[in-house]
Amino acid sequence: MPQHTDRNYAQDLHDLKAQILKMGSTVEGMVARSIEALVKRDSNAARQVIEDDQVIDRFEMDIDNLCLKILALHQPAAIDLRFVAVGLKINTDLERMGDLAVNIGEQVLELNKLEPIKPYIDLPIMAEKSQAMLRSALQAFIDRDVARAKAVCEADDEIDLLDLKIQRDLLEIMCKKPESVERGVRLIMVARQLERVADHATNVAEEVNFLVKGEDIRHSHGEATGR
Amino acid sequence: MPQHTDRNYAQDLHDLKAQILKMGSTVEGMVARSIEALVKRDSNAARQVIEDDQVIDRFEMDIDNLCLKILALHQPAAIDLRFVAVGLKINTDLERMGDLAVNIGEQVLELNKLEPIKPYIDLPIMAEKSQAMLRSALQAFIDRDVARAKAVCEADDEIDLLDLKIQRDLLEIMCKKPESVERGVRLIMVARQLERVADHATNVAEEVNFLVKGEDIRHSHGEATGR
Repeated sequence: MPQHTDRNYAQDLHDLKAQILKMGSTVEGMVARSIEALVKRDSNAARQVIEDDQVIDRFEMDIDNLCLKILALHQPAAIDLRFVAVGLKINTDLERMGDLAVNIGEQVLELNKLEPIKPYIDLPIMAEKSQAMLRSALQAFIDRDVARAKAVCEADDEIDLLDLKIQRDLLEIMCKKPESVERGVRLIMVARQLERVADHATNVAEEVNFLVKGEDIRHSHGEATGR
Repeated sequence: MPQHTDRNYAQDLHDLKAQILKMGSTVEGMVARSIEALVKRDSNAARQVIEDDQVIDRFEMDIDNLCLKILALHQPAAIDLRFVAVGLKINTDLERMGDLAVNIGEQVLELNKLEPIKPYIDLPIMAEKSQAMLRSALQAFIDRDVARAKAVCEADDEIDLLDLKIQRDLLEIMCKKPESVERGVRLIMVARQLERVADHATNVAEEVNFLVKGEDIRHSHGEATGR
């Protein structure tokens, strides 16, 4: 099958990249704003994050449709085909990260009804690291950069450690002050959402391997790709 | 574009369904076995679940490759195209559910080094419900059954409630008996994994809507599908 080189095809692939990057930066902004809303006790910002869910759902539909359009009209082959297949998967990861930011926004609205439990130090660090992982994973996807993708996967361990530390610190407070249990549990939930954001970023990075290293299936017919 | 009706095409689509169902029942078995390993304190069973991760990774590669093969060789259109696109996404969900069962297996190995904290009642119920959701979501996918998919999404609320109950019960024990904190945290992690299994089952169910209701993108060119 010949590689398609017509202008529309190139434009559609370009649009797909651009849309995924735009969705990614929207999600990143939602995560950042949700944690800012937590730290500043800003319920309006939290509500804004919750409303942005609609923007993300729209992105998801548009990107899925663009992928299907490319598959139907241009019948891509080899790496372009894998690029679109991975695009479909990454789209799902990004939508779920948006949901996680929304979950944080909802926790913030509840937390703002209660007195603060302690200053937030680790959660903003965890949020920043998760956002950096997302940014880096998407860049690795666009640049087909396996080394960068690998670094994202490795960074996930730091996130897991931070998550455990936050959990331990909060459990200690909760055990000492039973009246703080609701706040503690809600903050553990916030950390859990960030940990999952990082998980999804790791998934995106893992897809980069498949994108770059996957064998052309028309030659291997269902054999392992060594992913 | 004509619908492809040749025998290989039908066979490949059939194989894709069969592979996804087979992977689904393998994942379901892993979840079941991981909780059985917890309840019976059976480290061998836990290790078996951890080893099964390789089987799941193999399934994931084979299914991804089969999807790409179908896209490259048969250029499916309309619902068949969406079926393959959704197949790619569901494949990812199943692989991650396998990872979650592995995480439970790892927690069980650690828990078996410690004394039991209390009899397990809610965790096995939660595991059974999660497995039923997975089974039902895959059946809805195969049967293109939107009503069944909707029921799966609704069942997710029960899981979230069970997860909160388990968390609350364990926090109470942990606050009363500080020496039980490690066991409590590990069990909260087990519940968290099950909650995520149910989340992925819900995601699979949500994809069924897109499969069944998605407009043919060659007519709508990137417009919302009302998903």
